[in-house]
Amino acid sequence: MSAPALGLEDIQLALEAAPFHRWLGIKAISADEDALRLEMPWRDEVVSNPRVQSAHGGILASLIDLTGFYALLASGNTPAATADLRVDYHKAATPGTLVATGKIIRLGSTISVAEATIKSSDGVLLSSGRGAYHMPRRPR
Amino acid sequence: MSAPALGLEDIQLALEAAPFHRWLGIKAISADEDALRLEMPWRDEVVSNPRVQSAHGGILASLIDLTGFYALLASGNTPAATADLRVDYHKAATPGTLVATGKIIRLGSTISVAEATIKSSDGVLLSSGRGAYHMPRRPR
Amino acid sequence: MSAPALGLEDIQLALEAAPFHRWLGIKAISADEDALRLEMPWRDEVVSNPRVQSAHGGILASLIDLTGFYALLASGNTPAATADLRVDYHKAATPGTLVATGKIIRLGSTISVAEATIKSSDGVLLSSGRGAYHMPRRPR
Amino acid sequence: MSAPALGLEDIQLALEAAPFHRWLGIKAISADEDALRLEMPWRDEVVSNPRVQSAHGGILASLIDLTGFYALLASGNTPAATADLRVDYHKAATPGTLVATGKIIRLGSTISVAEATIKSSDGVLLSSGRGAYHMPRRPR
Repeated sequence: MSAPALGLEDIQLALEAAPFHRWLGIKAISADEDALRLEMPWRDEVVSNPRVQSAHGGILASLIDLTGFYALLASGNTPAATADLRVDYHKAATPGTLVATGKIIRLGSTISVAEATIKSSDGVLLSSGRGAYHMPRRPR
Repeated sequence: MSAPALGLEDIQLALEAAPFHRWLGIKAISADEDALRLEMPWRDEVVSNPRVQSAHGGILASLIDLTGFYALLASGNTPAATADLRVDYHKAATPGTLVATGKIIRLGSTISVAEATIKSSDGVLLSSGRGAYHMPRRPR
Repeated sequence: MSAPALGLEDIQLALEAAPFHRWLGIKAISADEDALRLEMPWRDEVVSNPRVQSAHGGILASLIDLTGFYALLASGNTPAATADLRVDYHKAATPGTLVATGKIIRLGSTISVAEATIKSSDGVLLSSGRGAYHMPRRPR
Repeated sequence: MSAPALGLEDIQLALEAAPFHRWLGIKAISADEDALRLEMPWRDEVVSNPRVQSAHGGILASLIDLTGFYALLASGNTPAATADLRVDYHKAATPGTLVATGKIIRLGSTISVAEATIKSSDGVLLSSGRGAYHMPRRPR
């Protein structure tokens, strides 16, 4: 990412085109040349283990996936779809806002790679991972 | 998996303990010595791309994660949590029931690995992947 | 894979074009519509832990990578390069022939996915994993 | 990593205990609180594609694996073995010294995660990835 090609409102609009992002309540917080930061508020339907009230791994995987995707988009690149996703779970995510930060690892012509971390609102690393994203074929 | 240690109703009950599984509407369809089969009905909130009505990659990742986890559980092993998850996206998942099949790759003492595939109701492979799951420490 | 497009001698020739495959001593054992089977003899330079004489994880990763790649090639498809690789280590690989079996998971137009397992000569699963491979752009 | 627990000579000694590291010619270059830096000289046996003289993906996977492992070791933690490995290939690695940098992502009690990048000697990112490493069980 050099200067972000999209402003925060544009990123928020693009995010909200997806019904699942609206359900998750994703908010674009900041975007600069280094990273995109998103937040997701808690909602009780995301709980996996009701005893410890932890978020389902699939919810954290969703956040990693979309944060990597939008890190590319925010920088003016438009990935077509996720090719593959890898997520490491470090600590249970218990009720509270989730803070996701995405960075581009490598901008490619057919595949780009971006990483994302998810932290609790007090800065504890909960999960991190990477997506490989299909880039659109350019007209020749 | 040899003979499945848990019956279908037990698996369904365990699945439904998780609020997120209830939201996804996961149903246990069959469990035998080879594989666990689950189904997830469509719901419009899971859409990522509203133009093609495709399910969000995070929803498919959720299914891969939980299907691998419950393949272990169905065979009488109780994973403690997902350590990491890897998902390949093969084809867009458009409206319709999603059929997930999970198999154990390797039962380990601290980490077990299980794989899962997701197909459309007419048998087209949409996504596949693997989870590595923490196994509980046994008392010594 | 339907009928394998390449015969065993063709596969062996293609394998040996790579100096690293010659160093590893990779042999093509069988190729049919379902799977490609390769073998790698032991050599002492691959040891990681000298106390247990186990093969380095990178050697097993090399085998997973190349076995997935050649499963695609054997079926008449020519991947251009590996995009990404994921390997699970199940058990230490101690001295003896390593038997690798590769299968295509999904043949795609830009990315194909293949999996591979590595077993000891007496059939114990040592490692398994997947590669995502770039497919060449077809002329339009 | 806070202050590195091992000095460079200790790291070099530990690296060289593995015959495969000696074959690769791995050298410990620097270790501080943030990262471990290793170098690997070129050798012709690592070539995969003889036309472009590129290093085999398995060699880069070996470097990612061992650099993550030794980033943990350098900080005074002793991983027992690699549990799983994920590698992204960004650009072909052509003849020249490979520079690998490893960082700890998360130090865990049973699994730790570390990442590594591989660059050419002129700083071009060639490959990057992560390993999940088994941590030894502590006596209770």
